[in-house]
Amino acid sequence: MTTETEGVQQAIAASASPAAEFADLSRRRQVEVFFSLPETVQQSLLTDMDVRQVRRFVRRLDPDEGADVLGLVDEETRTEVLRRLDEDRRDALSYLLEFDPETAAGLMHLDYVTVDVERSLADAARRVERFEERNDDVPTIFVVDDEEFVGELPGQALALAGDKSERLRDHVEETPVVTYDTPDTEVVDVFRRAPERSVAVLDDDRTILGVIYAGDLLRVIEEEASETLYEFTGVQEEESILDGPLTKVRYRYKWLIINLGTAFLAAAAVGVFEDTIAAFTLLAVYMPVVAGMGGNAGTQSMAVTVRGIALGQISLPTGRRAVVNEAVAGAANGLITGVLVAVIATVFNQSPLLGLVLGVSMVLNLVIAGFFGTIIPLVLDRVGKDPATSATIFITTATDVLGFFIFLGLAQNVL
Amino acid sequence: MTTETEGVQQAIAASASPAAEFADLSRRRQVEVFFSLPETVQQSLLTDMDVRQVRRFVRRLDPDEGADVLGLVDEETRTEVLRRLDEDRRDALSYLLEFDPETAAGLMHLDYVTVDVERSLADAARRVERFEERNDDVPTIFVVDDEEFVGELPGQALALAGDKSERLRDHVEETPVVTYDTPDTEVVDVFRRAPERSVAVLDDDRTILGVIYAGDLLRVIEEEASETLYEFTGVQEEESILDGPLTKVRYRYKWLIINLGTAFLAAAAVGVFEDTIAAFTLLAVYMPVVAGMGGNAGTQSMAVTVRGIALGQISLPTGRRAVVNEAVAGAANGLITGVLVAVIATVFNQSPLLGLVLGVSMVLNLVIAGFFGTIIPLVLDRVGKDPATSATIFITTATDVLGFFIFLGLAQNVL
Repeated sequence: MTTETEGVQQAIAASASPAAEFADLSRRRQVEVFFSLPETVQQSLLTDMDVRQVRRFVRRLDPDEGADVLGLVDEETRTEVLRRLDEDRRDALSYLLEFDPETAAGLMHLDYVTVDVERSLADAARRVERFEERNDDVPTIFVVDDEEFVGELPGQALALAGDKSERLRDHVEETPVVTYDTPDTEVVDVFRRAPERSVAVLDDDRTILGVIYAGDLLRVIEEEASETLYEFTGVQEEESILDGPLTKVRYRYKWLIINLGTAFLAAAAVGVFEDTIAAFTLLAVYMPVVAGMGGNAGTQSMAVTVRGIALGQISLPTGRRAVVNEAVAGAANGLITGVLVAVIATVFNQSPLLGLVLGVSMVLNLVIAGFFGTIIPLVLDRVGKDPATSATIFITTATDVLGFFIFLGLAQNVL
Repeated sequence: MTTETEGVQQAIAASASPAAEFADLSRRRQVEVFFSLPETVQQSLLTDMDVRQVRRFVRRLDPDEGADVLGLVDEETRTEVLRRLDEDRRDALSYLLEFDPETAAGLMHLDYVTVDVERSLADAARRVERFEERNDDVPTIFVVDDEEFVGELPGQALALAGDKSERLRDHVEETPVVTYDTPDTEVVDVFRRAPERSVAVLDDDRTILGVIYAGDLLRVIEEEASETLYEFTGVQEEESILDGPLTKVRYRYKWLIINLGTAFLAAAAVGVFEDTIAAFTLLAVYMPVVAGMGGNAGTQSMAVTVRGIALGQISLPTGRRAVVNEAVAGAANGLITGVLVAVIATVFNQSPLLGLVLGVSMVLNLVIAGFFGTIIPLVLDRVGKDPATSATIFITTATDVLGFFIFLGLAQNVL
């Protein structure tokens, strides 16, 4: 995207009268800018627009886009806009608005025709022609048997048959199906298995409700993608870089307070050894090294485990070997970095004993990091939570608290 | 995916003779399992297979999948496998193998036919029919003018025309195009703008090389997605949960050593105030609180900024307002958590002055977190780096070092 588009987006997000800024854009730019805006900003923009402006905007969108827009406005505006649209568009939008936007129905298009399996290819061709005249768009052809879904008729099949009076039955191809209430993330799984095809959306009685194309899922996957990073750092899904400071505070203060609780656990661990630190202040200097390295190694194990879970390569019942591997790798990495730290402490502080304590602490804390960095996401996944959410809190609490106990405890006994 | 599939994947990854494990699977399962394995494991599996086994596996794959497999084996095996395949398949594979797998050409299919724009619909229908007889697959129809790409002929258009002798010219639809060397991540952008269509892959002289469907990009986007989490935590793109401990150590030790360097910077900051800590050991207890909260707040700002950059909502030239907003939000969150910490320190340690120092440090360190958490990814993006890579190192170094300086420096002057 261009710097200019970014500027427009930020201007709309920050403006007190975003509708005026939006109205200045060309039609094409309006569509481009609107669907790149975060949902909170879309919402406040729509709130600032009057019924006439919303209607003019919705009128030139595809029905599934239009339904997304009308899903964001208040009941009254929605009713009013629908009333003022032409009948075809009103029917399509009202229909789509009945469904949950985060399901298969929320993704589906209505550009399909249905033909009974007992009909001929010539009948199918006539249906297509009528649809195109009316909608200026080429439909997907679904084949039904007494209203029930059977499969798809590839458009090219119409061209192939020498004899147009042939029954459809011989030309039907299998098409993956989902029910209307399938979560959009599960629709992605269906396409993963059959990426070249479109997917038919069915009602509970196997009648056809709509069609989804692979391209519709790009947005879903991208949202999933950035959600992982968000969950990883405890940011609310809705938050955007375009939000104002107050919104940001509202989204984040709770997570920071939870983290404060875990930080106090680490502080309490240090508190146990206050006398040791008083006797040997150098320990305070090296504390951030032991804790920091444990945290880094733990989040690395976690990232690898989260990806393994997402790709279906690992789960709690099959994860024993992975946990062991991560712990062993932690021991080895602890040895490498521990030797480095030990040498540095010995050289700089003339204390081989401190070096030894540091080295041993690094090895143990990186084993802890590997173990908890793997087991925590696996357990979260098992109990039905997203494996990335809040895993970092548990992991850094483990590496901080246990790391301080090991480091300061060893020091108390050895130094 | 099922636990059973996970078990097979892990068995293959850990096996000394993976080819034997793989040979035990049914054909269908082989394809499913192979393409879910990480590349390192795919590679060692292929190395363990003999030429005959590779050939039998490749023979039943689509050409673009087959080319991916042959791209992973050594030169000698590749030549030998190609030699033993039938001519059609060998030609398709040799052709696809010439291209870089991470470009448009690496994604493209060859299931298309070309028809000259001066030809009739009947000619196009004949081409489609011949292709289907030979390949058992319905092709996309591209229209050319004297070899140069013009557009696409929707299959349904063949059905619409009453008069099959009509020229194609009136039925051509515009199709997005990319050149063969376009990076696959840029192809994703093209689909983002036109999600319902297929994309034609062209040579420099605008002749057609292949076709890409939206579904082919699901894998690219998913890879991009988990890469962000990997970069965020400094894990190498190639690493998988299925790797053994030695591989894991090799992938990670460098990043941990770099982090060790930054941890020593934090240690050095603490070292400056050794005397202060010796006089007032309680400071060591609260150090993890100040540093930890700064780190958490900084990675939150960073996650939001990285998403904003990915969605094209912000870049360095347009980022001033975002940086200010994040710093202001940091101040507010610092105030909320700072007051909490101050109260706790006052109550538990009977030291209102320590409470004041802690509270002020929290505010300042969370402003620092907001500032650096936003500006660092923007700068990395500007200089052409991925904004998530290594940003955490810079951010936690900033919040650790500056946080300790502020907290211990204030304490030195006040307590």
